[in-house]
Amino acid sequence: MNNLIQTAVSQLKAADDILIITHRRPDGDTAGCAGGLVQALRNIGKNAYVLKNSDATPRYGKLISNFYPNEDFKPQFIVSVDTGDTGLFTENAQIYADKVDLCIDHHRSNSLYAKTSVVFPEYAACGEIIYRVIEQLGTPITAEIAYPIYIAISTDTGCFRYSNTTAHTHEIAALCLKTGIDGGEINREIFETKSRPRFEMERIIFDNIQFYLEGKIAIVQILQSDLQKTGADIDDLDAISALPRQIEGVEVGITLQENKNNSVKISVRTNKDINAAAICENFGGGGHLRAAGATIDGNIKEALDRIVEVSEAMYA
Amino acid sequence: MNNLIQTAVSQLKAADDILIITHRRPDGDTAGCAGGLVQALRNIGKNAYVLKNSDATPRYGKLISNFYPNEDFKPQFIVSVDTGDTGLFTENAQIYADKVDLCIDHHRSNSLYAKTSVVFPEYAACGEIIYRVIEQLGTPITAEIAYPIYIAISTDTGCFRYSNTTAHTHEIAALCLKTGIDGGEINREIFETKSRPRFEMERIIFDNIQFYLEGKIAIVQILQSDLQKTGADIDDLDAISALPRQIEGVEVGITLQENKNNSVKISVRTNKDINAAAICENFGGGGHLRAAGATIDGNIKEALDRIVEVSEAMYA
Repeated sequence: MNNLIQTAVSQLKAADDILIITHRRPDGDTAGCAGGLVQALRNIGKNAYVLKNSDATPRYGKLISNFYPNEDFKPQFIVSVDTGDTGLFTENAQIYADKVDLCIDHHRSNSLYAKTSVVFPEYAACGEIIYRVIEQLGTPITAEIAYPIYIAISTDTGCFRYSNTTAHTHEIAALCLKTGIDGGEINREIFETKSRPRFEMERIIFDNIQFYLEGKIAIVQILQSDLQKTGADIDDLDAISALPRQIEGVEVGITLQENKNNSVKISVRTNKDINAAAICENFGGGGHLRAAGATIDGNIKEALDRIVEVSEAMYA
Repeated sequence: MNNLIQTAVSQLKAADDILIITHRRPDGDTAGCAGGLVQALRNIGKNAYVLKNSDATPRYGKLISNFYPNEDFKPQFIVSVDTGDTGLFTENAQIYADKVDLCIDHHRSNSLYAKTSVVFPEYAACGEIIYRVIEQLGTPITAEIAYPIYIAISTDTGCFRYSNTTAHTHEIAALCLKTGIDGGEINREIFETKSRPRFEMERIIFDNIQFYLEGKIAIVQILQSDLQKTGADIDDLDAISALPRQIEGVEVGITLQENKNNSVKISVRTNKDINAAAICENFGGGGHLRAAGATIDGNIKEALDRIVEVSEAMYA
């Protein structure tokens, strides 16, 4: 690891007028990495900014919005964080797509678009790499720097719950907490608060959940009319497809989301024994063993019938 | 820390025929500590058992049930783990109440009932202390030992989410994961699986949730008739009182649970600005700033009216 980290550190130390790019629909990891790195760079005397990300929601936008540059800023060195491909750049970042000097990332699928790519796919969060970089920049890791990095790590691991969490993840979290940040308060805000539209959507979908094969298959439906009634947006639906499978006994959890154009988005989550991708391949979709998706043309009633048929067939 | 740990280690090394006691209604911490310690003691050649805990549910009981002694076991050295007072001993442990040689615990309220008390209230989980003890017993910490200790720590911290989580907590979690245990799978089982009765209860209470003062106060009701309908038991209701306050905008989340004897159990959870204990003191109850409880005589309709009145008065 150390050589690659050292490369990133040397380049950043040698550079100035640094612009940091985050990915579209920024999550805690990309925003947290940018928010931590920009402060560390400023602390060692660099002129550094984060490119404005107009997709940013308040929750993660606050980690970077104080570091947006003025219009007259002329960047000399471009760094992207947690961004596997320039296709994930926001509109205003596209002019830098072939000019990225350094990419720091943890996506296995990274397309190596930067002049230098520092990619560690074994890490759960890009924040783990950023921490190691900052550690060697020659500035103390203050609470202000640890705060966004902790958020990067906790959000990408479901608060240390997911299988991607490693000993290294915990080691970095320990170092972050040692700066005095209040992890409990951060996590309460991020993981324990449910927006009112989200709450209403959960209530609606669970009121209408359907079980098949003695509870082995659970299907929930997200209707356009319910989205309008509750005012739920994309953020409010985040990870909602994980919910049906969390019910005891459910082996296949399916979420059907009605699109506006007479088609239905299907998300399938399974436990170990059922292949989610195989289910979705029936509809031209795909994915992983335990999480997959597809889109079906037609109305939601038809989609429901077809997915029930295919899912039940997995048990035949 | 080291002196006290060293005391525990020396006593355990000098002892034999060791019996480990867990507390009533055992949680992940007490069961995990016992399950880890008993294996480590056996690995250094000790004759060691965990006293049978008949309160144990399958989830945590499996951490200790393989280590229950035969009836002819005559213990010479008694250790309690994660147990602040002998009042928390199970019925079959009461004969040891005044014979506990060593108590390893993290409760500030520990009544120092043992001949030697190794109590570290600054640790989120007793498992953190047990890890430090085992580390010095002179046996490697295997995956079999790390597994229950990881569960001890993750369950007592809400999977590293709560404010009690410290850098030390993460350091021990990192050491546990290094043994190769699958934290993601453990957490999925413990934190992501919702029993069917729990699911049904959540559906019912959220269908009937009532909001007051423009959503600042949320009240849910758990009726005896719903418990019967769903088959939900105490385990199924675990931490259910935390749910109403998780809804955006809710500052006071109240759970009313109908008892069988014409009384109602009240649980109040608040955010920083409202004193939960002050609300409950109106009904002869009490607790902490953000979590408190009380019992009101009478039926649930009356209890609802009274708690609404008192809670709204907090804003007057």
